[in-house]
Parts: sequence; structure tokens; C-alpha cells
Amino acid sequence: MDCKDILNTTYQQILNEENLGAVASYIPELAKVNPDQLGICLITKEGSSYSCGDAQTPFSIQSIAKVLSLSLVFSKIGDDLWKRMDFEPSGNAFNSLVQLESENGIPRNPFINAGAIVMCDIICDLFDDPKKELLNFIRKVSGIADLSYSQNIANSEKQTGFRNYALVNFIKSFGNIKNDCDQVIELYFHLCSIEMTCEQLARTFGYLANQGKQFKTQLEILSSSQTKRINAIMQTCGFYDEAGEFAFKVGLPGKSGVGGGMIAVLPNSYVIATWSPRLNTRGNSYRGIKFLEEFTTATQDTVF
Amino acid sequence: MDCKDILNTTYQQILNEENLGAVASYIPELAKVNPDQLGICLITKEGSSYSCGDAQTPFSIQSIAKVLSLSLVFSKIGDDLWKRMDFEPSGNAFNSLVQLESENGIPRNPFINAGAIVMCDIICDLFDDPKKELLNFIRKVSGIADLSYSQNIANSEKQTGFRNYALVNFIKSFGNIKNDCDQVIELYFHLCSIEMTCEQLARTFGYLANQGKQFKTQLEILSSSQTKRINAIMQTCGFYDEAGEFAFKVGLPGKSGVGGGMIAVLPNSYVIATWSPRLNTRGNSYRGIKFLEEFTTATQDTVF
Amino acid sequence: MDCKDILNTTYQQILNEENLGAVASYIPELAKVNPDQLGICLITKEGSSYSCGDAQTPFSIQSIAKVLSLSLVFSKIGDDLWKRMDFEPSGNAFNSLVQLESENGIPRNPFINAGAIVMCDIICDLFDDPKKELLNFIRKVSGIADLSYSQNIANSEKQTGFRNYALVNFIKSFGNIKNDCDQVIELYFHLCSIEMTCEQLARTFGYLANQGKQFKTQLEILSSSQTKRINAIMQTCGFYDEAGEFAFKVGLPGKSGVGGGMIAVLPNSYVIATWSPRLNTRGNSYRGIKFLEEFTTATQDTVF
Amino acid sequence: MDCKDILNTTYQQILNEENLGAVASYIPELAKVNPDQLGICLITKEGSSYSCGDAQTPFSIQSIAKVLSLSLVFSKIGDDLWKRMDFEPSGNAFNSLVQLESENGIPRNPFINAGAIVMCDIICDLFDDPKKELLNFIRKVSGIADLSYSQNIANSEKQTGFRNYALVNFIKSFGNIKNDCDQVIELYFHLCSIEMTCEQLARTFGYLANQGKQFKTQLEILSSSQTKRINAIMQTCGFYDEAGEFAFKVGLPGKSGVGGGMIAVLPNSYVIATWSPRLNTRGNSYRGIKFLEEFTTATQDTVF
Repeated sequence: MDCKDILNTTYQQILNEENLGAVASYIPELAKVNPDQLGICLITKEGSSYSCGDAQTPFSIQSIAKVLSLSLVFSKIGDDLWKRMDFEPSGNAFNSLVQLESENGIPRNPFINAGAIVMCDIICDLFDDPKKELLNFIRKVSGIADLSYSQNIANSEKQTGFRNYALVNFIKSFGNIKNDCDQVIELYFHLCSIEMTCEQLARTFGYLANQGKQFKTQLEILSSSQTKRINAIMQTCGFYDEAGEFAFKVGLPGKSGVGGGMIAVLPNSYVIATWSPRLNTRGNSYRGIKFLEEFTTATQDTVF
Repeated sequence: MDCKDILNTTYQQILNEENLGAVASYIPELAKVNPDQLGICLITKEGSSYSCGDAQTPFSIQSIAKVLSLSLVFSKIGDDLWKRMDFEPSGNAFNSLVQLESENGIPRNPFINAGAIVMCDIICDLFDDPKKELLNFIRKVSGIADLSYSQNIANSEKQTGFRNYALVNFIKSFGNIKNDCDQVIELYFHLCSIEMTCEQLARTFGYLANQGKQFKTQLEILSSSQTKRINAIMQTCGFYDEAGEFAFKVGLPGKSGVGGGMIAVLPNSYVIATWSPRLNTRGNSYRGIKFLEEFTTATQDTVF
Repeated sequence: MDCKDILNTTYQQILNEENLGAVASYIPELAKVNPDQLGICLITKEGSSYSCGDAQTPFSIQSIAKVLSLSLVFSKIGDDLWKRMDFEPSGNAFNSLVQLESENGIPRNPFINAGAIVMCDIICDLFDDPKKELLNFIRKVSGIADLSYSQNIANSEKQTGFRNYALVNFIKSFGNIKNDCDQVIELYFHLCSIEMTCEQLARTFGYLANQGKQFKTQLEILSSSQTKRINAIMQTCGFYDEAGEFAFKVGLPGKSGVGGGMIAVLPNSYVIATWSPRLNTRGNSYRGIKFLEEFTTATQDTVF
Repeated sequence: MDCKDILNTTYQQILNEENLGAVASYIPELAKVNPDQLGICLITKEGSSYSCGDAQTPFSIQSIAKVLSLSLVFSKIGDDLWKRMDFEPSGNAFNSLVQLESENGIPRNPFINAGAIVMCDIICDLFDDPKKELLNFIRKVSGIADLSYSQNIANSEKQTGFRNYALVNFIKSFGNIKNDCDQVIELYFHLCSIEMTCEQLARTFGYLANQGKQFKTQLEILSSSQTKRINAIMQTCGFYDEAGEFAFKVGLPGKSGVGGGMIAVLPNSYVIATWSPRLNTRGNSYRGIKFLEEFTTATQDTVF
């Protein structure tokens, strides 16, 4: 059975099983979505593309965008980045706050909110118009020339994001935010507002499966060495407090978002993007995790 | 430049650089060792073996032995193991205690002390003479017929291991230790007392680079699927609070011990064992980490 | 209305109200008791004594005995005690473990288990036969010549006290236990096993309301200054995570035990002892707290 | 030796001893002050007033003002206040953040920053012009008709108070802030900006030593019962992580501020205010604590 058949078979199987968990509801925009959609798209380095279900429906990619902000900053300032951030797993959300305190405002990694906020601060340092330049970078990487921030979602985040306001101020109290808190958090909320389809997602992150270069165009986004390192961080920190479980069950580096999207990478081979809005108790897509577990078991794909 | 040359070159380079950190001193036996030794041994699936420096000197493998107790238990009871243990990274030592409390005595993973102690409790459940059976298993896996526990080290651990006594009692207060605390901790101290050379270590863990089978004999230690999972756990949890850094810099699953030993695995390819007693501030071998970083950068070996 | 009338009226009122909470059940001996008993005894400096209800029924005084071990140690070594212990409130139980870690094995105060265990260690230092000498001290203070440890309760504690075994080993790992863990914890379990009636309790602690001297005999247990200090510690640390609430509602220094007993002190005036086995969610006697709140509101007795 | 003589003698003694600790420097206004000033003022219920040293020099009373905001809110809404706040000691600063998380945004007590911020939120609920009404209340209580906020200090707090901005947003994320974060924190910074002399401070808090009524005028600020309760909260929570030590050494309810000021109350007798800018490591005035310890030892004044 080839990859495409396994994809379709697994898709049908998951569709037939019960769908558990709840859609993220902390902002109205996320709660509105039809919870039982399921989209899959796999794109290989060689150019093959396989899609199932709702692979062409745009959704809020949320924290998956943190891989983009990390890529932008890493490509611009290299390892200087790690003066302001660590790359260790953070354990549960509860710990992340305690750790921020005990580690003097140095976030554990670029994928927890604290880390992504510090990354936004660095982007504010780098550019006169950080919001525009971040968007330009995402447009370049994704190849979607007319991509925009979702103003609706950014505004919603802003009206309810008190914990993120708390974070940026808390980190600034340790001196690890250089710019105005409002400007930084504004950029952060816009970063989280990006919408893509599964197909766009899989294409966007092709460089992680191709030594830093986009699949078709071979446009270099990161060096080969930086690419490996981002994959390593995704492996250890990409799924909140389920990183170990994802490594254990799926065995590929990846990143999830509370919108129900996920990407996973088989280095030098393919990127797969999944989307299904219901989240398990640890905040990752219930069907997304399940699909990837079944799929990689059948294909025997794993980095381990 | 082939693998052997890179190994030798990197070895010479590391020898010429300064050697930092301190030897573990919590038990006299560990403190006695000559701190500037450095041994390396790489063994490939195909049967090649390359050694440098003190590769034939036996040393206390300490926590590396936790991979063996995990392998024994996993091979015996399969996924039932995960009813009594998680497989998530634990953050720093400080957190591991708090997490044990907030997670009702379920250790974060099998490689923190709490997890290895629960594993010893399961071994006590499985066998009438757990100490003997564990040793038999290690003899079988390593192929060293006359391997024994180091009574010296086990006794030293016993006399100073109050924190481990605290752990086993604390976990028992949550009901996650079924046997007598003294019996369990006795087994744990013996597990940590095993001594091997780099060459023996690399040979012992061949099954992790060969779908669960030993290199030469093809003796099956674990199923292919279980092997991948142990590699995944080593990747996310194998280096205390430096797991993310090891993934970032080395990019191979592995495990370290406070005796200064380390193993790292390139799946389906090779196992490399290093030993150098001086530890960095996070408890991993200073020269071991450095060697593996330089070596894998030169060979471009990585799972990512 | 005089003190005696208020006592009786309040007693009747509390008896008529519902009785909530659960009896401590972590050891069988505590769970066996009739949960709806209520005993009160107030004894004044001048020699008056008023009792209500089950004031002559013996019960397990549990942590109230920690005031006695503190008094013994304080009288023997004075302020040297505070080299091994602090006298700050500890917040909730969860924190006490974290704090022990971050404060290097120095317990927050003598009334949390960790603190009482360190006190037992000091008693082991002071005497050749610490168990006998502690009992002698309690006999002297209470005036009950034939008082004994309850072997039943001490044994029960021993069989289920894994968390306390954990504590003593954990503290020893920081060097703040000097004697053998087993000996120290044995003494601790015996300390907690003492049984008294409300009347005996009130009489025993007369020295706290009389500048350090027993009411009738004027036998000096502590100096006047030490007495004030013990009252101060009871005020800030005497009721687990309800010390603030007890100060707020009752306004007297005091100490409670999980057997449902409590003492409270109006300095230079009286000691009142209450006993009712059902505990509120914070581990203090539901009716005991309620009685003292109503009683002191009616009498307007408070140190504030 | 009468009270006045003891005051003078103790003052001279403290002046002759070394002065340790550092002036609070987190805002420039506090750092500017001459660090070796020492002022004392004791005012009795009967109308006597004794002053020493710099008792007429105004200084920033900082957190002592939290007793005033608590008194205002308590007098207005009574025990409804405790639906939004607890009255338990908080342990160290580190814990207060963790506890806020684990206790769902309910501050431990009204004297930690989180609690005072929630109090400011309640004041914003109560009044159309909260800043003006709070000032009116403080003018009324202090009898200083022309008292104003120190705009300098309030502005300084604002420019550096990122941790407090973090707190207000964090609490709002739990729903325990009802008003706009900026308005609440603005009020909080103004509350902390009040300046008084020792003499004014002692007079202002006379109601705490007189069942809720001001000394001279007998103006009722709080009910007798509320007054006892505020004294109880000061006793258990008034000195950051030194509340136990203050109870132990001084034995009076009181409150300190990082400006180096302190008040202490002997109920039904007197209020004493001290000021000396150097702070010990726990954030309380080095000489203030020392003075009160010596003074109360000599007078034997204590609530215990």
C-alpha cells in the first residue's frame, strides 16, 4: 500500500471513529468553527501532494505561526537569539510561570507564549515596521502573496488576552523585553491571527523537510544547520505538555495550534499538515494526533 | 573524511581543549576517578567498531542503566507500564518534586529518579529474586557473562541516598510503590552500580540502533515499535534539564549518567558511547557533550 | 452574662447547629471515634474551671503535642533552636515541600510536620533515651503521672506514614537531621500518639497563659519571654493554612490537631481546650473553630 | 523607667549601633533619601505623644497605605470583601505568584500587592472618582486637610511598575478585576505615593488602638470588631515574609513599607510609628525592626 492509500485509509478510519474534545473557546472566532471538520495534506520533497477532507478550508493556525517568527528571528540574528531564550521543554503551563520567575525572565523555549512574546520583541528591534515585515516574511515563505493578518482574530485576542499582557509585563520587569509592552503584544496577537489551509500549511513548512529550502522554488529560508535545530526544538517543545507523548506515539518533529491545526515533518522527505478543531485536554487536536499516530504506524515513518 | 577519521580528529581536538566541570562527588567511589580521562567507542550495525582513548576502562554507568531497567520492564509488561508512569520531560529537578506531588505520585518519565524507582518496584513485582533477574537481563543484553553489581558503589549510594529514600516513601504515600520501600530502593541502588567500558556500553545498546535486535547475534531485546519509543523517550528526557540542548546541538537520542558516561543512537546505523568524568552544571559530561556536538556536526549525523 | 454562662450557651447553640466535615481517617484509630462528640474545658489563671459535654473523654491530641516538643527543646537549648528552623507561616501543604527544597531543609516553623520532625531530632541529640525523657517532660507539664504513649496509634502512624518517612529522609539529605532517620521518626510518631481529655489539655497548657508557669503549682516550664514567643508562633502558624482565618475570627493564639482537638490561649487569663472530631477542609475541627468564634465574639476576648 | 525614657534610651542605643541594609532603589525617589535617618513617634490613647529623631520628616509610606485602602473598603462593604480576597499569610514573594495561579486569582491577603490591587479595583467600583474619594478618606482619617498624592512618586512607580502591571492583568485573566486594568493600577500607584511623617502616621492609625475610633476626636473609622480583624491581619500578614519573626520578636500587630516606615499597635493603648530607610533582606526597615524589638522587650509590651 503506498503513502496515498495509507493516507486515505487512515482518513476514513479516523472519520468513522468518535470525535472527542472541545473546540478552543477563549475567543469567539475560534468557537464559531464547525468542530467536526478534518483536513489532511501531505507534500513531499519530490513534489507529490496528497489531500483529504477539508484540506482547502482556511483556519486560524495560531501557535503554528510561532515556527515562522522563530525562523525569521533565527535567520536574522542566528544564535544570538539564545541569549534571550532557552530551548528546553517547559513541562506544564503552571510551571512555565514559576520557571520564568526562577530563570529571571528567560523563557524556556520559543514555543511557549513567553518565548514567542520575546521573539516578537526581537522582531520589533529588527524592523521599523515589524508588523509589515513579519507579514512580508510569512508571505515569502508561504508563497501566498495576498496573505493578511485576520483583524477579527487579532482584535479578539487583544480583548481577552490579559494573561498575555501579564506575561509581557512580567518579562519586562526582568529586562527581557526592550520595546514598549503594547507594541510587542500587538505584534504577538497579529502573529497568532494568521489563517491558512492545510495545503498552504504543508507547503509553507516545506523548508523544514528540505534542509532549509522551499520545496519547489528551492528558496533558502534557513541554513541546513538551523533547520535541523528548529526540528529539534519542535520535537522537544512543539506540543505543550504532550511533547513526550507525541515523540513516543508519532515520532516526528511538529507543532500544534489551539485552532486545531498541526504540522509534522519527516526530515528530507515530507511535511504533513492536519486540521481538526476539537482539542484534547492538553490542548492538541484530538483527531490530528490520532491521525498522525495511525498514519506513521502504518507507514513506519519516524525519526527514531 | 570517513567516520573513523572524524572520530580520531574530533577526539584529538577535544583533548587539546580545556576540560571544565567537576566530577560527581556525592559518593566517594565516583570522586576517586581520574577526572581527565576520555573514552569513545562507536559500533555500527554492520559490525565496524572504532575506539579512542580510555575506551577500555570500566566506569560507573549510573543512570545509563535506567535504559536497561526500562527495556526489561517494557519487554515484560508492554504499555501497561504507562499506567504507572508518564513519558514527558520534567524540566528541572526542582520541578520534578512539585510535579510528583501535583501528579499524584506518577513520575514524569522513566529516566528521572522517581521514574526509575517505580520501574524497580515493577521489577520487584515481576520476579521472586528481582536483583538476580535484573542482573541476568543485563548480562544477556550486554553479552558480558560475568558482569556483577559493584557492591562498593551500591553501598555508598545506600549510605548517602537520603533523597532517594525520601522519593520512594513519597511515591508510596500516593500508592504508586507496591513493594517494601527498602527492597525497592535496594534494587535501585544496585541498578545504578553497574560498571562498563565504553566499548561494552556501545555494544550493549546496539538494539536501539537495530530495531530491537543486538548487532551481531540479532538477539531480540525489544520489538521494533518499542525500540522507536525508547529512542523517543531518550530524545525528550535523556539528559536531565539539558534534553532540549542535546537535541538542539547533537540531534540524536541518548542517555547520560553522573559517572560521566553517555550513549547516543543514530537509528538503523550506530551507537556511540563516550566517557569523561567532569560534569557541566546540568550534570552531563562536559567533554562528552562537546565531543558529540563536534562529531555530529562533522558527520552531519542527526535524526532531524 | 458571665464566662460560664456564655460557655454553656455557646455549647448548646453549637450542638443545635449542623455538624459538618469528616473525621480524619488516615489511620484506623482516628476513624473509629464517634464523630459528633463535643467537649469544652476552660481553666483560668485564678483556678476556675468550666467544662461542657465530652470534656472528660480522652482523645488523640496529635499535633497539639508539637507545642510540648517545642517547649521542651526551647527550654533546653533556647534560641539555638532557630539555627535549625524558622518561625514563619508556611502557606499550604503543597508549598511546605517546595519551601523545604528552596530553603535547604530548614523547616518553616516547628508546627509543620517537617519542623516537628527536626525538633524530634534535637530531642534525640539531647537525651540518651529520648522517648522516655519526652514522656517524662509531658508527664511533668501535664501533671498526669501515669500518662503513656498510645502504642496503637504510634504503630498505625508507622504503618502508613510514608510521607513522614519521606520528609525525614529529605531533610537529612540537606544535613538537618543528625540522628538515624528511623529513630527520629519513631519518636515523632510517639509524640503524635499522646491522648488527653479536654480538661487535661487545658490544664497542661496553663503555662502559656501564665508567663511560663503552671497555674496551680507555679512550676516554671518556660521563661516569660519564651512563653510570649510560643504564643506568637501559635498565632501565626498554629492552624495549618487557616492561621490567618483563626486570627481573624477568634483572635487568640492556639494550636489544633487532626484528632479534632484545639487549644487557645488568652495570655495572663485562661486556656480553653475544645474537641470535636469532624474536620473542615483545612484540617481543623469544624465545631471547635465555630465554638471559639462564637465564644470569643460573645466574651469579646481577643489579643487584638 | 517610664515609656518616654525607654523610648529615648532605646533611640540612643539604636543610633549608636551599626546601620545595615540598603535603601529601596526600584524608583529614583526612594533612592534619593538620606539612608541614616531615624524617626520615632508614639501616641497613646490618652493623648500623650513622644517623638525622637526625624519624627517630623515626611517620607513615602508606601505599603503602609494598604491599611488605609483596606479600612476604606472594609468600612464600605464589610465582609463581602472576603469574597474577593483571603486573609492568610502568603509566604515568600515567589509563592504569592504561584498561589495566585493555584487559587484562581484570589489574593492571599490585602497586604500583598495582588491583594492591594484587588482592593483598588473595589474602590473603583464604589466611587465615580476613586482617586479623589480615596484621598478624601485618607485626609479624613489622618486629619491632614491638605494631604495630596505625590505625583513624582506615582509617576516613577508607573514607569517601572511592570510587575504590578503584570499582576493586575494576571488577576483580570481570572475575572477578579472588574475595571479597566489601567485605571486600577493608576489608583494603586497613587495609593503607594502617600507621604507622611512619623507623627502623622502614629496619629493616623490611632483608630487601630482605640476600637475603631480616632484618639482625640473619637471619629469612628471602623467598628470595634472590624478593628480587631485588621489588627489580626496585620499580625499574620503585615511584614511580607517576616510576619512570623515580627510576631516572635516584637509581638505587636503592625505594617511596614519599603520606604522604611513601620507602624505597630498595642490594642487599647498606643500606636508607634518608626522610620529608617535601610531595609533588611526581607524588605523591612533594619533599624525599625530593631528599635521595636528593643523597645517592646524593655516595656514588656506584647499582645501575647
